[in-house]
Amino acid sequence: MSTSSKRPKARLPRGFRDRTADEVAAERHMLDIIARVYESYGFAPLETPAFEYTDALGKFLPDVDRPNEGVFSLKDDDEQWLSLRYDLTAPLARYVAEHFQDLPKPFRRYQVGRVWRNEKPGPGRFREFTQFDADTVGSASPAADAELLMMVCDALEALGLKRDEYVVKINNRKLLDGLLEAIGLPVSEIDEIRHRRGIALRAMDKLDRIGRDGVRALLGPGRKDESGDFTKGAGLSPDQIECVLAFLKPSITALSPGFQLSGDVGMAVSNTASGTAGQKEIHAIFQAVKQSGHEGPIHVDRGIIRGLDYYTGPVFEAQLTFPVKNEEGEDVVFGSVAGGGRYDDLVARFTGQQVPATGISIGVSRLLTALRQRGLTGEVKPLIVVLSLDEPARAFATARELRNAGLRAEAYVGTRKFGDQLKYADKRGAALAVIEGADEVANGTITVKNLVAGAQLSKSIESREEWLGARKAQETVARGKLVETVRAMLVPHK
Amino acid sequence: MSTSSKRPKARLPRGFRDRTADEVAAERHMLDIIARVYESYGFAPLETPAFEYTDALGKFLPDVDRPNEGVFSLKDDDEQWLSLRYDLTAPLARYVAEHFQDLPKPFRRYQVGRVWRNEKPGPGRFREFTQFDADTVGSASPAADAELLMMVCDALEALGLKRDEYVVKINNRKLLDGLLEAIGLPVSEIDEIRHRRGIALRAMDKLDRIGRDGVRALLGPGRKDESGDFTKGAGLSPDQIECVLAFLKPSITALSPGFQLSGDVGMAVSNTASGTAGQKEIHAIFQAVKQSGHEGPIHVDRGIIRGLDYYTGPVFEAQLTFPVKNEEGEDVVFGSVAGGGRYDDLVARFTGQQVPATGISIGVSRLLTALRQRGLTGEVKPLIVVLSLDEPARAFATARELRNAGLRAEAYVGTRKFGDQLKYADKRGAALAVIEGADEVANGTITVKNLVAGAQLSKSIESREEWLGARKAQETVARGKLVETVRAMLVPHK
Repeated sequence: MSTSSKRPKARLPRGFRDRTADEVAAERHMLDIIARVYESYGFAPLETPAFEYTDALGKFLPDVDRPNEGVFSLKDDDEQWLSLRYDLTAPLARYVAEHFQDLPKPFRRYQVGRVWRNEKPGPGRFREFTQFDADTVGSASPAADAELLMMVCDALEALGLKRDEYVVKINNRKLLDGLLEAIGLPVSEIDEIRHRRGIALRAMDKLDRIGRDGVRALLGPGRKDESGDFTKGAGLSPDQIECVLAFLKPSITALSPGFQLSGDVGMAVSNTASGTAGQKEIHAIFQAVKQSGHEGPIHVDRGIIRGLDYYTGPVFEAQLTFPVKNEEGEDVVFGSVAGGGRYDDLVARFTGQQVPATGISIGVSRLLTALRQRGLTGEVKPLIVVLSLDEPARAFATARELRNAGLRAEAYVGTRKFGDQLKYADKRGAALAVIEGADEVANGTITVKNLVAGAQLSKSIESREEWLGARKAQETVARGKLVETVRAMLVPHK
Repeated sequence: MSTSSKRPKARLPRGFRDRTADEVAAERHMLDIIARVYESYGFAPLETPAFEYTDALGKFLPDVDRPNEGVFSLKDDDEQWLSLRYDLTAPLARYVAEHFQDLPKPFRRYQVGRVWRNEKPGPGRFREFTQFDADTVGSASPAADAELLMMVCDALEALGLKRDEYVVKINNRKLLDGLLEAIGLPVSEIDEIRHRRGIALRAMDKLDRIGRDGVRALLGPGRKDESGDFTKGAGLSPDQIECVLAFLKPSITALSPGFQLSGDVGMAVSNTASGTAGQKEIHAIFQAVKQSGHEGPIHVDRGIIRGLDYYTGPVFEAQLTFPVKNEEGEDVVFGSVAGGGRYDDLVARFTGQQVPATGISIGVSRLLTALRQRGLTGEVKPLIVVLSLDEPARAFATARELRNAGLRAEAYVGTRKFGDQLKYADKRGAALAVIEGADEVANGTITVKNLVAGAQLSKSIESREEWLGARKAQETVARGKLVETVRAMLVPHK
């Protein structure tokens, strides 16, 4: 044995966490339901590896200000750089480019998996998390976007949310292109204009977080944030800025065949080619969702931007409408639980060929937090622990008998000490203990003990006699009546 | 757009692979069933992160000849080394050491997850794979070992294997300690003897792969393998070597209360303290599994060694008894699909405190290969593709109607071209196509087409008329009879 000074400390790496039974079970329940809905639409699962070649991953990190950072990378034996995937979209692009000829078109896949970001960890900010993506590659039709929206509605409802507990907000980057064109900043090959357009879009995307004044500053000369860091702005004039803000003003419109941009700015936008095209796509999506009865939760919201540079058409975001408690226990209406949009350039970086694509990604941990607070995490059966007083073999057989009757039962496999067994049942949160000691065996009986009232099982109780005397809710019955007795004693737990 | 010379090539990193729908679905089906069985025994899921601190992972790699290699590692911002986990046991040891006070004892968890090995990739040898582990920490009782054996039997049978299609072979490291003691190589603190014992154990473990002559060489002076590499042997004398080989001789014994080591060597082993203890543990395991009716598939096999140095008591291995095709299509009876044993030192390297533990690990991809060849991968419903001839919205609503009737249906969301839609249905392997074009809508009818006979759908067919004419198995029925007609046409697929 090494001496204590040489022993490593048992500790988690910074920014990573362990997940225990309740959370794992709740997440699995959630992911299974989403997968079932997605598969019912004909989306097929795909799993890509954790690693990709760094050059294949490209620079699609959401934080464009530091495109080469944020990734875990290492050099392989053959001197090629490998990176852990930071999302599931870049690996999809690699996969589609590699197998384009063999895939059905459109190719629709979903993928659920861990992704890694090499970022500064902080409270609630982890470096490993799970994403659940669905994408349709190879269809330029707004029907493909509409399908994703219907699917996410169905998934949220299959998880137990009611139709008024969420909204799916849609917008179209073409409307935003139209807006920037209308104020004199059209789509352009000139680097300086592209750059300013990018700053302007990211500024608009921050409306929720930094408010109108913050966005005003970022659209103009720039903004100093709380930490004192200065972010250069898009350099728009005050008139231009007011046009943008007028366009973004809280304006949620029920999706309808008559959807039209309103107001002076709206009119100007809808007169641009991009604006017209964007409006047309919104109408087409409406037609598609209407006939399946999905139009209720889907609204147009001109404030939905989605920061990523690569979106080219419809963008969307699913939000919950009820408050969820944050880590400090305060009620907050938190942002999106899913988001996505159309991106037509992703495969082209490998093949040169433009392939239209659209996708939606669920933020798994955020949605899970909301579902857990709502209790929408699947049924958990109460636990029965079969104590093991002399023969472990007997406890196994008894636990098995209970399991075969559809109950959740386990045999204790530790020491023979009664006190240890009680502490175990307590820590496991068991509802019932089953006791089959020498007395019971001799008399052909078995004892079932209700533990729920005894969450505070005294640690001073070390003998069986003390314990039996101290507590009431127990029954000793004929051995053949075990299952029946257990069922009756579990009724209040149901 | 970047020029073609600057484009990255879309390619998988060496030693990694993509997994497509069939495999992902079959694996999920398998993992779900195993998890359900393990949970029924009271094992709770745990998920640890992909990364651990390198010093916390330690040197438990199976290949003791290069203990520091084989791991993907990188340096964090704060100069600490991180490694991707190479198994699920080392993270468990870290977790238990970190939370020992708060855990129920014994602590029983299962974990399923990806692990990574930075090894030379080769055919069928991947650097990322999935393990499914169950461990009981904090119980020295053979009941804990017995429970793992029963659980793995139940899991294999829940997956659809019959009782005669697998065996679970057990052995005990204490018998091997007794054997080495009997031939004059007892457990020792002297480095040279420990080292020779290690070589001897690893040599015995290779009996299946290198045969008796190979093992004889490794137990003696050493062995040159096919590549010409020389491995130093344990330096045993010919007499000692023959004793070891006699003990290992193919000897599968049904587990029984009368289990005894036989022959001269067996007697000598059972007279050592270790040999006696080992035999006693085997008896205790027998008692525990017998009462639950699990003794049938469980046998003692003195040839089961399990290479890892850290095992200290019972070791076990589940094997399939039927041939499985390898990658070359040849029938092979392949080795273990699960294995494990008792290890009592793993947590001590963090805390100095010995904590008894036992575990079993399922080789997910190997078991999956066998189950897929047997067709034990869950039901897959035949697929119905609803073609989209004019209004995508109509196809969505029709697909939804079929789904609500419990069928597997998807709407086509690509181009309007009929030829594209047919190719799509073909590539997706659809059983039926549903067609609701202008004619059908005008007449209040709908057409259902059987595609199974048409796996060879000619790519020359580009118009609907050609196609309808060329093939027979289709029906045009009143719109209200859609579900009924689809069900009738699917019957042969069931």
